[in-house]
Amino acid sequence: MDGTNYPSISTEIQVMYYDTDAAGVVHNTVYLRFIELARTQLAIQMGMDFDEVRRTGIHAVVTRTEIDYKKPAALGDVIVVHGRIDEFSRIRFWCAFEVVRPSDGVLLASCRQSLALVQMPGGRPVRLPEGFPMTFSDGSL
Amino acid sequence: MDGTNYPSISTEIQVMYYDTDAAGVVHNTVYLRFIELARTQLAIQMGMDFDEVRRTGIHAVVTRTEIDYKKPAALGDVIVVHGRIDEFSRIRFWCAFEVVRPSDGVLLASCRQSLALVQMPGGRPVRLPEGFPMTFSDGSL
Amino acid sequence: MDGTNYPSISTEIQVMYYDTDAAGVVHNTVYLRFIELARTQLAIQMGMDFDEVRRTGIHAVVTRTEIDYKKPAALGDVIVVHGRIDEFSRIRFWCAFEVVRPSDGVLLASCRQSLALVQMPGGRPVRLPEGFPMTFSDGSL
Amino acid sequence: MDGTNYPSISTEIQVMYYDTDAAGVVHNTVYLRFIELARTQLAIQMGMDFDEVRRTGIHAVVTRTEIDYKKPAALGDVIVVHGRIDEFSRIRFWCAFEVVRPSDGVLLASCRQSLALVQMPGGRPVRLPEGFPMTFSDGSL
Repeated sequence: MDGTNYPSISTEIQVMYYDTDAAGVVHNTVYLRFIELARTQLAIQMGMDFDEVRRTGIHAVVTRTEIDYKKPAALGDVIVVHGRIDEFSRIRFWCAFEVVRPSDGVLLASCRQSLALVQMPGGRPVRLPEGFPMTFSDGSL
Repeated sequence: MDGTNYPSISTEIQVMYYDTDAAGVVHNTVYLRFIELARTQLAIQMGMDFDEVRRTGIHAVVTRTEIDYKKPAALGDVIVVHGRIDEFSRIRFWCAFEVVRPSDGVLLASCRQSLALVQMPGGRPVRLPEGFPMTFSDGSL
Repeated sequence: MDGTNYPSISTEIQVMYYDTDAAGVVHNTVYLRFIELARTQLAIQMGMDFDEVRRTGIHAVVTRTEIDYKKPAALGDVIVVHGRIDEFSRIRFWCAFEVVRPSDGVLLASCRQSLALVQMPGGRPVRLPEGFPMTFSDGSL
Repeated sequence: MDGTNYPSISTEIQVMYYDTDAAGVVHNTVYLRFIELARTQLAIQMGMDFDEVRRTGIHAVVTRTEIDYKKPAALGDVIVVHGRIDEFSRIRFWCAFEVVRPSDGVLLASCRQSLALVQMPGGRPVRLPEGFPMTFSDGSL
């Protein structure tokens, strides 16, 4: 299967004051909030359901983040996070993200994250559902 | 009993990049994070214990905030939050806070918050412990 | 003029993990981020322009917040912030907000904020533009 | 010169409600706030001065972050960020961090970040000062 056919998402966000810092640009940690928004919207699109998360206590948790900051975004900029499932095993999956500013086509940041399903509290690892990455749900989740 | 003898706290914080915004000053919501740090340190001083919070599911939740922003703080400023218990009933208490910058004595913000104890999940109100405000614990909490 | 005809906005937000805390609900300070998003979208609708903000250094700053927390919102909830201009003088204006959860019609929080225009750095107060509250811009801004 | 002799810092932080999420643990992006606190305290120890930052407009910006999340921290946990300068060139330096919980000796997260000095606004790269990493200042900074 070709990774370019894995589930993907594009999330648009406008930069607010609370996203910026005294250097006049988006704070480095805030890009990871933007990326989490895109990632969660991708999970919802794949069938993730917050009621099931609460019922089962099974959460997708980030186990590693790699992010390269290329160019700064400023107050009021409209930016887009492009996210996709990139790779997966039985217990872990990787997402890849590009954060871009469509008005000038600039790549602001690129990011990869690995995630695993764990049951809280306790943190026991849970196998990815059958059918992943085409779905986040196998009925048992 | 004189309110000036109620439990109080002074918490020192240095302003970091992530506390500021593109206007070059501390973002208005961040003062409430500073105030929560002071309030939590006050609660710990009064006997609040996070293991008991987890065991009982009883959390002190903010029910109202009033905050006046007087002067801005900037990146690197060392500021102090002075907090105290100000007033209380059987089910609610008020805290008062002043955020100051000792280097020039400026009052940055003043704030009052009411809080109540509630049992989560569900949100059932819980009576304040006997002995409050001299203690946050009555053995049952 | 009837205040009900002043500019208003409705902003929809879905609650993400980063909006919640260990009590399982939206953290009290996060509602003020939601409210800022609505308030900024209202300002943009009224003609506020981030390029002009950067050029002039004139920012709308919060001078007071009053917020009552009524009911908690949980992970995944879709909530709406209804905001409007409520009152104004030559140098200050008040916004009013209601945060609701449309799925069950519950009022989660109500809030009032006063704002003023100030020129940064320095913090010199600036008069509201002619035509406010029907516009945020008078050409000079 | 042996890297183990480069400047280092240990920063203690207690986990507050606003650091946690509905999974009951510290949110993944919050570790990067903790790490920034340690990194900034390290920079101050090395001679970084916020008044000079404001005067020169030269900021240390994160260009890459790698972080591995090993074990979760919970509300009320006291954790320590150990940070140090790890490697550097003429225009970039790497910091390494370990986030640990002293009460049980658990490693919560490990992180590497590269940083560069840039002059804002504009983002022009600036060479590291002579004497780095023993100092963050060469008089011109």
